[in-house]
Amino acid sequence: MKVEIRTDVLTNNNLAANYNRELFQKSKTLVINLMSSPGAGKTTLLVETIKRLQDEYKCAVIEGDLATSHDADKIRETGAQAVQINTHGGCHLDARMVAAILPEFNLSEIDILFIENVGNLVCPSGYDLGQMHKVAVLSVPEGNDKIPKYPQMFMRTELVLLNKVDILPFVDFSVEQAGQDLQAINADSSILPVSARSGEGVEEWINWIKEALKKC
Amino acid sequence: MKVEIRTDVLTNNNLAANYNRELFQKSKTLVINLMSSPGAGKTTLLVETIKRLQDEYKCAVIEGDLATSHDADKIRETGAQAVQINTHGGCHLDARMVAAILPEFNLSEIDILFIENVGNLVCPSGYDLGQMHKVAVLSVPEGNDKIPKYPQMFMRTELVLLNKVDILPFVDFSVEQAGQDLQAINADSSILPVSARSGEGVEEWINWIKEALKKC
Repeated sequence: MKVEIRTDVLTNNNLAANYNRELFQKSKTLVINLMSSPGAGKTTLLVETIKRLQDEYKCAVIEGDLATSHDADKIRETGAQAVQINTHGGCHLDARMVAAILPEFNLSEIDILFIENVGNLVCPSGYDLGQMHKVAVLSVPEGNDKIPKYPQMFMRTELVLLNKVDILPFVDFSVEQAGQDLQAINADSSILPVSARSGEGVEEWINWIKEALKKC
Repeated sequence: MKVEIRTDVLTNNNLAANYNRELFQKSKTLVINLMSSPGAGKTTLLVETIKRLQDEYKCAVIEGDLATSHDADKIRETGAQAVQINTHGGCHLDARMVAAILPEFNLSEIDILFIENVGNLVCPSGYDLGQMHKVAVLSVPEGNDKIPKYPQMFMRTELVLLNKVDILPFVDFSVEQAGQDLQAINADSSILPVSARSGEGVEEWINWIKEALKKC
């Protein structure tokens, strides 16, 4: 019984994900699903990312949160369109939630759509939203044990943005160790150290996005 | 259909939680369910807590993680018994998982049992494990928006340990704001600033536990 229901949930999700993906491909919109623990800095990083891209590319954001519209408000201050999904207790976005709000966007005009998932290092990893890329954000104060302890997340992401490296001197974190741990569970993934606050590494992240745009 | 299933899950959980609670009351074991985001510092804080309590009280720990036994290994270095539950992808502990491993403990000899839940600011909050107290750990690098953005967690906890205050000068966090946000959603809860690393506030946390023991 339990297995059947889970299969139903994921089958329905995958149908909606495929629907989203077709729309994104048709409009040639690069779609990135950003996932992390609460407080890893996804929103601040997105604000800095959009500021650096918006002269050249039209960006938009889907914000997933249990409650509040704080994050969408912060994104809108950049001038980019942001639509908030409140999950009211749900621990992840699913493809149907995304499909339901896509009509609010004019996809044919949007070059890059970021989906900021609910802050959660567990649940979002299992749900395809129709995105082209899954990117995880891990922040150095969370500690070195997160990659082995949350393997489902890091197995499924092709890039790990290692955020808040400006406070590396004040916390216990080894970037080298994180690289080794990631290699052990996902040899196709890589780590990019960044700091939304100091700007370190953000240019490399922008270049990663521009490379992804070429293949879109 | 969806509603029925959810009711079943929570009904089953509550039955097991009541079973656990009866055992804990019978053995006069103080049981604290610790919840937080990944990387907020629950394990390090528990190690420091146990070191300060173990001359006077017998402590034990149930560790919840998706994978690995790293946390239980760290606890065992203090000499306390620790049993690891691996949820293999599950985003929270439930009362049946706890009930299933209770036979590994000699509860009548244990004064304090800490349950370190899976690192997740969403899912664990809805599941009663039979504990006497729910305590949240929030770390200052996670930022000030976590209390309003994850209300289900902070509505249900009677104490918030505000951890990593040793790095307050290097991150953007207002302790006063956190206090106001917590009051707004849960007037019965309070914030205790602590640092597992510097030891700040840990004595107050120990006193809180000792007060709880008197009522146990």
